[in-house]
Amino acid sequence: MRIETICTGDELLTGLTSDTNSRFFQEALLDRTGLTVRRGAVVGDDRQDIIDAIDLAVSRADVVLVSGGLGPTSDDLTAECAASAAGVPLVQSEEALRHIEERFKARGIVLSDNNRRQALVPRGAEVVLNTEGSAPMFIQSRGGCVLFFVPGVPREYRYLVGEHVVPRIAARKVTTEVRKLALLKTVGLPESHLDERVRPLAAKYPQVLFGFRTHPPENHLKLLATGATEAEANELLERVVAEARVVLGPTCFGRDAQTLPGVVLARLEERKEFLALAESCTGGMMAEQLTSQPGASESFYGCACTYREEAKTKWAGVPEGLLAQFGAVSSESAEAMARGVRESTGVQWAVSTTGWAGPGGGDAENAVGTVYIGIAGPSGVTVHKHRFHGDRERVRSFASATALDLLRKQLQG
Amino acid sequence: MRIETICTGDELLTGLTSDTNSRFFQEALLDRTGLTVRRGAVVGDDRQDIIDAIDLAVSRADVVLVSGGLGPTSDDLTAECAASAAGVPLVQSEEALRHIEERFKARGIVLSDNNRRQALVPRGAEVVLNTEGSAPMFIQSRGGCVLFFVPGVPREYRYLVGEHVVPRIAARKVTTEVRKLALLKTVGLPESHLDERVRPLAAKYPQVLFGFRTHPPENHLKLLATGATEAEANELLERVVAEARVVLGPTCFGRDAQTLPGVVLARLEERKEFLALAESCTGGMMAEQLTSQPGASESFYGCACTYREEAKTKWAGVPEGLLAQFGAVSSESAEAMARGVRESTGVQWAVSTTGWAGPGGGDAENAVGTVYIGIAGPSGVTVHKHRFHGDRERVRSFASATALDLLRKQLQG
Repeated sequence: MRIETICTGDELLTGLTSDTNSRFFQEALLDRTGLTVRRGAVVGDDRQDIIDAIDLAVSRADVVLVSGGLGPTSDDLTAECAASAAGVPLVQSEEALRHIEERFKARGIVLSDNNRRQALVPRGAEVVLNTEGSAPMFIQSRGGCVLFFVPGVPREYRYLVGEHVVPRIAARKVTTEVRKLALLKTVGLPESHLDERVRPLAAKYPQVLFGFRTHPPENHLKLLATGATEAEANELLERVVAEARVVLGPTCFGRDAQTLPGVVLARLEERKEFLALAESCTGGMMAEQLTSQPGASESFYGCACTYREEAKTKWAGVPEGLLAQFGAVSSESAEAMARGVRESTGVQWAVSTTGWAGPGGGDAENAVGTVYIGIAGPSGVTVHKHRFHGDRERVRSFASATALDLLRKQLQG
Repeated sequence: MRIETICTGDELLTGLTSDTNSRFFQEALLDRTGLTVRRGAVVGDDRQDIIDAIDLAVSRADVVLVSGGLGPTSDDLTAECAASAAGVPLVQSEEALRHIEERFKARGIVLSDNNRRQALVPRGAEVVLNTEGSAPMFIQSRGGCVLFFVPGVPREYRYLVGEHVVPRIAARKVTTEVRKLALLKTVGLPESHLDERVRPLAAKYPQVLFGFRTHPPENHLKLLATGATEAEANELLERVVAEARVVLGPTCFGRDAQTLPGVVLARLEERKEFLALAESCTGGMMAEQLTSQPGASESFYGCACTYREEAKTKWAGVPEGLLAQFGAVSSESAEAMARGVRESTGVQWAVSTTGWAGPGGGDAENAVGTVYIGIAGPSGVTVHKHRFHGDRERVRSFASATALDLLRKQLQG
């Protein structure tokens, strides 16, 4: 089944907003039918452009979802264009008009002529009332193609697409083929290396689609398995996931909705252990990421963001003499920070970062991008020296992810 | 000038991610040239679909921006499709290959055959090196149409589109009219109120385009002035900016590239004063934002991210009895945290946050979303109680911005 989407609205072409509706449809469609969208189009509030987009989609698709342009104002042109493209007039839907009148009455708002316009639909179209708004959804059949027209207001879009469009597409599905998706997430493995590692597996399982997604500092492997039944697709997917996990080894930190800070916190909670941080160059980024997870306080003690040298001494117990001797960006300093925070807070684990995030700083031994990461645990302190590339934000985000990932590996033994 | 965009990538059609790149292009294009995009297309990683989309765009547009599919993996097909669509072979760009080799050498990573593939471009295309990544941008001319091909990785996309694509489109523009843009930034003022406040000004200056941009927790006023010359556009813009600043008063924290943490740090540096933080519910977010600014160490001491109660006592000197009596989410606790961190570090200013970010927590007196913000300065400590709405991330980001903005207002007297 070839499925296309058309989003209408000047605001989608002038930098005012991004189309986030389509993702909702795509996700619901994949989850509930295993189908994917073939193509998407975005057009402005222009009669001819909307008609052209509809005609083109009808010429090559089985299902078209058109969103936006069903509001009450003069730049809402979609119903009119749907009628024109099909060569039929607009007619008033009595049930849609009644719905609009009742809605306005309930809110005590006077109905304007503009609002009445929202009850006009192309002749022959099926009307589906919209309990979340005044504009109805309507459905046209043109040859072998079905077109669904829904408002672009996210709340209305989600209701109509979730409750009416996707179930109707599911009902039209002839094939019983089912698709199941998994994401395996890695940190520290370049995309090209990820591809090379899993290539033999991709060759072994041609019925599974292998894809890659770069989400710096993470790289994700996307696996889409197809089967005749739900059970078959699941079984195939899980087999490939298991083999891919073997190939990826410990570089794979999680799957699907799992996040790196979430996995770190979960491991700590399982072990009933606590973590404290001493962040210098990452400046609170690890703490922010960990505390973005609900329930972080079950295993996160807190963070000493020791930006100035005095703070390293005060909160992380780093001796002034050590900073003077080795400098704040040094293996010795990272070690002392991790050890100091661990000992003074009494937690089981502490992680420290100190480095040159740029653009200024750096010296002969430690160029900009150099970051020392200290991991203090029950069996001692280890320090890892890394060199990251790119601008300040990139160095900081790679340093944070690398530090959390080093801790994760130690927690997983 | 008819401008179209084509975004490629299965992830844009399967619910994995939304296209947010296009909005960056649209905004930069409008701001710097006054032009808008006519149509957008989204296609998956499918050879024929990509070629069809390119051919269709070439048949009706003057400029086409194609993004995505230039990575090193086997599902990166765009260069190959660009060559096919134009009927030319792929050839190796020596300068692109050199760039890739140098990049990998600098990082100490072994170059794979996949990476070398990224140096292949359609014969006759102009190559623009990408300082943010390995895949080059390339430019094709087909008849009267110019096609720009850029990677989809947001950082690389933004660099190439901002520095190379938009300036080249601007250079192709025939008109000599000059447009100048200013952004005035506010925190804590709803978009509708911002609109109402500046409406009389918009009526007074019809030759200036007034727009609004919501960047939660900030709202920005966008002013676009048009003039026959650079001087005329500038003069008009500065006049409106000055009047808008009067209307907005102290709610306007900055202009154009200025950021809230950047303004706070600049005020501190002018006063030769230091800031320390005690963050609980914001969990390091303020520290992360402040330290994202280069040179933050000139006025930022550090942050005690006191997530557990023990950390509030240890790092911020909050008496255990006080926490037991009033609870961690209380005016008393916020006050003690700010005062404690200020006194123990010896800085002039300290800011604290404590609250319920959700989804769990909250009590009869302090519902989820309640945040206490403490500001300790040379003339004492003030505590501000706020109630934010929305999910955990929204509560945390609004609390961080509100706290920094309260400090900014105190610093500006």
